[in-house]
Amino acid sequence: MSTTGEKILGRLLTLGQFGHASGIYFRTPFTAAETAAVDRVREWMREAGLSVRRDAVGNVIGRVEGRDPAAKVVATGSHLDSVRDGGVFDGPLGVVAGIEAVAQLLADRGTPARPVEVIAFTGEEGSRFPMGLLGSRMMAGLLAPEEAVAILDREGVPVGEALAQAGLDPARLDRVARGDLACMVELHIEQGPLLERSGVAVGVVETIVGIHGFQAVVTGQADHAGTTPLGMRADALLGAAEIVLALPELVRPSGGVVTVGQLDVAPGSSNVVPGRVLFSVDLRHASPAELGRLAARIRGEADAIAERRGLRLEWHTRQVTTPVATDPALRARIQRAADALGFPWRSMPSGAGHDAMAIAARCPVAMIFTPCRGGFSHRPDEFADAAMIDPGFAVLKRLLADLAWE
Amino acid sequence: MSTTGEKILGRLLTLGQFGHASGIYFRTPFTAAETAAVDRVREWMREAGLSVRRDAVGNVIGRVEGRDPAAKVVATGSHLDSVRDGGVFDGPLGVVAGIEAVAQLLADRGTPARPVEVIAFTGEEGSRFPMGLLGSRMMAGLLAPEEAVAILDREGVPVGEALAQAGLDPARLDRVARGDLACMVELHIEQGPLLERSGVAVGVVETIVGIHGFQAVVTGQADHAGTTPLGMRADALLGAAEIVLALPELVRPSGGVVTVGQLDVAPGSSNVVPGRVLFSVDLRHASPAELGRLAARIRGEADAIAERRGLRLEWHTRQVTTPVATDPALRARIQRAADALGFPWRSMPSGAGHDAMAIAARCPVAMIFTPCRGGFSHRPDEFADAAMIDPGFAVLKRLLADLAWE
Repeated sequence: MSTTGEKILGRLLTLGQFGHASGIYFRTPFTAAETAAVDRVREWMREAGLSVRRDAVGNVIGRVEGRDPAAKVVATGSHLDSVRDGGVFDGPLGVVAGIEAVAQLLADRGTPARPVEVIAFTGEEGSRFPMGLLGSRMMAGLLAPEEAVAILDREGVPVGEALAQAGLDPARLDRVARGDLACMVELHIEQGPLLERSGVAVGVVETIVGIHGFQAVVTGQADHAGTTPLGMRADALLGAAEIVLALPELVRPSGGVVTVGQLDVAPGSSNVVPGRVLFSVDLRHASPAELGRLAARIRGEADAIAERRGLRLEWHTRQVTTPVATDPALRARIQRAADALGFPWRSMPSGAGHDAMAIAARCPVAMIFTPCRGGFSHRPDEFADAAMIDPGFAVLKRLLADLAWE
Repeated sequence: MSTTGEKILGRLLTLGQFGHASGIYFRTPFTAAETAAVDRVREWMREAGLSVRRDAVGNVIGRVEGRDPAAKVVATGSHLDSVRDGGVFDGPLGVVAGIEAVAQLLADRGTPARPVEVIAFTGEEGSRFPMGLLGSRMMAGLLAPEEAVAILDREGVPVGEALAQAGLDPARLDRVARGDLACMVELHIEQGPLLERSGVAVGVVETIVGIHGFQAVVTGQADHAGTTPLGMRADALLGAAEIVLALPELVRPSGGVVTVGQLDVAPGSSNVVPGRVLFSVDLRHASPAELGRLAARIRGEADAIAERRGLRLEWHTRQVTTPVATDPALRARIQRAADALGFPWRSMPSGAGHDAMAIAARCPVAMIFTPCRGGFSHRPDEFADAAMIDPGFAVLKRLLADLAWE
């Protein structure tokens, strides 16, 4: 017997063919690859009984009207773009599962009480333009059209021009923001190992973590590696290494995460004492207060290490996003749905950003996580089998029924 | 009153004009820059009363015959080439000071008892061809002509072709090795801070340290920086940082030095947990036994750190050179010369390699160090003023008198 999960996997693989030509999976906004994926999604939406439109920033919206013409919209969805050399689950799963859930509900239950939409957002990853959540920010009214059109990609092409090239009308960007959303729920792979390792079928996201992103520059003194005694060095790498090692110890008790993913040593010769080290710090926590407290403690501790070692330390802030809490009432509905279906669930934070984060500025949001193999994401071997997807799908379907058909 | 030191500085600056055209000081073997420097050195040698020849590998040899035709040669000198963006003291000081010392001795004392040579070695730094001490290795018979001619520079030009382009005859390389050297003494800036900081005028090198050069590769698991809890990571950078920090503690008690000068993180994105880190380890010690013991301890400790963190660690040996001791009798003569001239001196290792290291395979060698400002070397601001150079010069002159004129 074929499961819904298997049908969804088939559709994800179908969308996966629409990537860049270079042999890696990489789909960015306003490209031929995106247009091909959008066309396929439109087709599936129409088959499901939805009417389809595309807004001026490229979000694809499949809609079924409800019996109450004045009711606000119950929305679900996710995004269609990918990171470079990413996988086919991150984003498309929420779109494909949303279409399938609504299709099954329309077949089972007929016209809903309230209007339902499945939304495929554009430009969530920020891998072409240096701003993520492009489609959802515009829909939430968080980004002014005149700002949006001026954002440049790496080749210097502004969003405005890219939109026009894709047949979209930048002059209509002011109609993208919505005031008619009742709520939005997003289904997504966890992108981490918690659900798989704990054997729990469904994750109920409590908070999408906030990020403090810094760049630190440690400056010491470049010296000859043979002729400078250890006691007379100001080795920037030793200072950086001590800071890097201290970070997880500072952050671990809080339940947050911290990562140094980038570290460059200058001059970078094996026979020269490092004079300068530049490294990134990516700190994430679900609580805004903890995030601020941890950021301050990290900087204080790092300053103390640098001072003790006679090094200079500069900090540059790269990114600050505030944690976004999901809606408690929606979470409770998800938990009741999982309980009713007999699926073990757990509350958890989302360590990655999602479109729901932006939409939360307009309406209550929720997120349902499915496990994924090994917790891998943003890699070509990103995967979740049908058994991993089915419970999350069933909970999404039951939640949409609860929200729009009851 | 002008000192000898000032005259020497003037000549170093004169040679400094012969570098690459790109605005940085960089003189490599068998180039127009080297030829121009060699021509000036030949001129100074002839002015000093030396007869000049250039051997087939490019070493320039200024010689004065002694009264005893059977006596072996008392040699002094250093090299003319530089590192990229280096300074004008590293190398040329020993050549220019040697010429000046012999010139003054010839003027003061006439014909020496034994033959004296001032040698300007070629290719000490290994900055064009990937093997340092090219001229002195050939003179010591440590490198076979057929091996030498085949060494390629970065553009793929073999030594043999480069020699021919500079007007040298590769067919005569088999005549470069010498059996007629009595001893060789090299004057050099310290390239480190010990003499300047301790206010000591003259360094007497006891040993030229040996080097164990490794490359370590730490492999963990690249993961999403937001969604992978700290306790579920195999962060290659944390392992590397712990090893980097442990190294100086392991080596410090031995009096040796250890440096991690190169460290590369992959994939190197701020939002990805490092999956792989590659770093260099440059370990130096004056004792062969200590060098071996320290190398083994470092590898053992690093393996233990990697294992504890669930990381894989591979080691690749890049370079192994054995420490070279200078001649005790020559050291004693240098110390007596310094005492007689009233200059404070100290015994010390050389943390860098020098031509004397290769020549030690053929005859007793010694090295005299002068202080240099801040201990800086291999930098454009490498500097020693006349007051820093004069004592070392005076000791060299007295030593040459002692060895060749008594």
